[in-house]
Amino acid sequence: MTSNNNILIAQGGGPTNVINQSLIGIIQEEKKNKSKIFGSINGVNGIINNNFKLLNKISLPTLKLIGNSPGAALGSTRDKPDQKYCLEILDILKRKNISKFYYIGGNDSSDSLKIISNQTKIFKHKLQCIHIPKTIDNDLVKNDHTPGFGSAAKYVAMLFSGINFDVKSLPGVYLGIVMGRHAGFLTAASSLLRKKKDDGPHLIFLPEIPFEIDNFLKLIKKEYEKNGKCIVAISEGIQDKHKKLISERTSKNQEFDSHGNVQLSGSSSLGDFLAEQIKKKLKISRVRADTLGYPQRCFPGSVSEVDQDEAFQIGRTAVHFSKTEKKSFSTGISERKNLEKIYKITFKINSLEDVAGKTKTMPSKFYDSKAGNVSKLFQKYALPLIGKKIPKTSSII
Amino acid sequence: MTSNNNILIAQGGGPTNVINQSLIGIIQEEKKNKSKIFGSINGVNGIINNNFKLLNKISLPTLKLIGNSPGAALGSTRDKPDQKYCLEILDILKRKNISKFYYIGGNDSSDSLKIISNQTKIFKHKLQCIHIPKTIDNDLVKNDHTPGFGSAAKYVAMLFSGINFDVKSLPGVYLGIVMGRHAGFLTAASSLLRKKKDDGPHLIFLPEIPFEIDNFLKLIKKEYEKNGKCIVAISEGIQDKHKKLISERTSKNQEFDSHGNVQLSGSSSLGDFLAEQIKKKLKISRVRADTLGYPQRCFPGSVSEVDQDEAFQIGRTAVHFSKTEKKSFSTGISERKNLEKIYKITFKINSLEDVAGKTKTMPSKFYDSKAGNVSKLFQKYALPLIGKKIPKTSSII
Repeated sequence: MTSNNNILIAQGGGPTNVINQSLIGIIQEEKKNKSKIFGSINGVNGIINNNFKLLNKISLPTLKLIGNSPGAALGSTRDKPDQKYCLEILDILKRKNISKFYYIGGNDSSDSLKIISNQTKIFKHKLQCIHIPKTIDNDLVKNDHTPGFGSAAKYVAMLFSGINFDVKSLPGVYLGIVMGRHAGFLTAASSLLRKKKDDGPHLIFLPEIPFEIDNFLKLIKKEYEKNGKCIVAISEGIQDKHKKLISERTSKNQEFDSHGNVQLSGSSSLGDFLAEQIKKKLKISRVRADTLGYPQRCFPGSVSEVDQDEAFQIGRTAVHFSKTEKKSFSTGISERKNLEKIYKITFKINSLEDVAGKTKTMPSKFYDSKAGNVSKLFQKYALPLIGKKIPKTSSII
Repeated sequence: MTSNNNILIAQGGGPTNVINQSLIGIIQEEKKNKSKIFGSINGVNGIINNNFKLLNKISLPTLKLIGNSPGAALGSTRDKPDQKYCLEILDILKRKNISKFYYIGGNDSSDSLKIISNQTKIFKHKLQCIHIPKTIDNDLVKNDHTPGFGSAAKYVAMLFSGINFDVKSLPGVYLGIVMGRHAGFLTAASSLLRKKKDDGPHLIFLPEIPFEIDNFLKLIKKEYEKNGKCIVAISEGIQDKHKKLISERTSKNQEFDSHGNVQLSGSSSLGDFLAEQIKKKLKISRVRADTLGYPQRCFPGSVSEVDQDEAFQIGRTAVHFSKTEKKSFSTGISERKNLEKIYKITFKINSLEDVAGKTKTMPSKFYDSKAGNVSKLFQKYALPLIGKKIPKTSSII
């Protein structure tokens, strides 16, 4: 280990079920470079607080266990560095002679990285800032999809397939509130394991489509009258036509994170509110609402093997790219041109400017806003991401 | 098939992840008896509405798929037959020449079966009423445990192990509201995959222990001050010292089923209320609450192989017992005498009177009410039930 090869890894934002696969991908690959590999504990926060851990000595079997674990193994943060914070970060990284800083995170984390990277020029420290994407929301621009999405999508798809059987047994209306602030990809994934024509979810409400309560009730009424049941997937981020979150009306106490985002998860008022509307206005007695919550990103029994492998590979690939690129960048997954072809991905380089702080939403070809549902093309896009290890099922009724 | 061998199967109450294993256990075994096997669609409701399905022709591969599926494959019901309803049922069963009626369900279903069975004497129709237990609540008396519990317990245990990693990443207070009206077994199962000393859940609140909000806040404060985080498992059935449900205070619109039970699941007001109390009174900013809801009983990715096998075997065994007993009964799992011994179960006969409508709660040896936690003995009791197919995990921090 030479001091020229000091590298730093951190993890930021909400963890996913495979964020540690990217971590161990980087560690295993940087070990080959004989780098001295530091981990910053709790994202950029650990840099400021001088809270580092040397990662070289973790054994391969332990690394594998870490890769299989949800949560961010190095800890995470919601801190968003401002100019002053960034100067402090750079001062510490310079003193530790860090040449590469790998930050595994979503679009907020890539934004932090962009700010730091821009400061290096005036700070006269040669530092490569390397972004490795993760987010269950799948909302990173310039990426076909994002590591972490496939496993969360698998949880949501499997849950709705289970709910299908449950609601067949005891009919009624079931509402499942799915994570996703601006992008409806995860909510749309509720459709992925529908097999029969009358399988739910029968209706899907996305943040991309302005939400109107009257239309919502009308569609549910129609479906319920047809089949005596209705399963509905609703994004926690549904908004009215003025882009105002519906959940802001239903929750008394709003909470904001340091990126200025309203905290959506961890409260269930949206589901309860919508269930009450259905009971009162449609006079349907059996209405149940679940807010799917944190299991979507950390339930250990629904990891997609495809997602897991890609998260590992993108970590390794970031290390390869760091040698050829010599500058800061965001590692990406190339957009598939033809969704009919056999599933295969390639990695690419995006500039931090292209990715940072931007949000991708569902393209309109992926949904049918009038029917309150997703398109077949979305299913072609997303089905390969959840992998093939799905329990096979059947029913009598 | 002779008309003497007409048998009927139905499923009642809230479904579990393995209720169909018992169904196919009965079907496979009754096929050997050359019985004509009818299924009643939607529990006792299907009898009244003459909604039967002949089950003999379902192929073995399809039966296996049905066994692997959540929900009640024959449909379920919350109907509770009164005297008049029972006479109608018996009239129809007599006309169909049904000699055995297998009803797979919880203590409410066994109560329905007891009422029907008691009517046979005055109705002059020879009918064996056979109860096969299922419930995720594990609250059936005279049973070591109940098929369905192990898989729900596995979901809850796995979820809390995932939450552990998630909260390690982004510390705060996490509340998980677990199903269970009177019995805390399922909530207690949240403890089963704790490995390290500081692993959560750090506190567990059961319906068996009178709930006091001041004590609840005091215990959370202490834990949070010690570790900067606190993971809490709370039963939806927690009650004050007057046996009044806490959720009755937090939910505006109460709903009752036909057994007179308050509907607890499908609303998340309890978790939201408790989270608000913590934020306000303890001034902790990051507090999240999930109401675990229906995934506990129907998520397809967390079935316990032990539970699955036992549910199948108890169905088969009910058929065997029906031949030796010649009278109505409830099939049961014998209480283990010594929890230190290698896990092994045996089946037994209970009378319907002994089981019907009664509720088992956690014995006091299974918890420490002062510490807000469960005992090691509970873990010895419950750990074998969730099986061994649990993902292995590790972390750095």
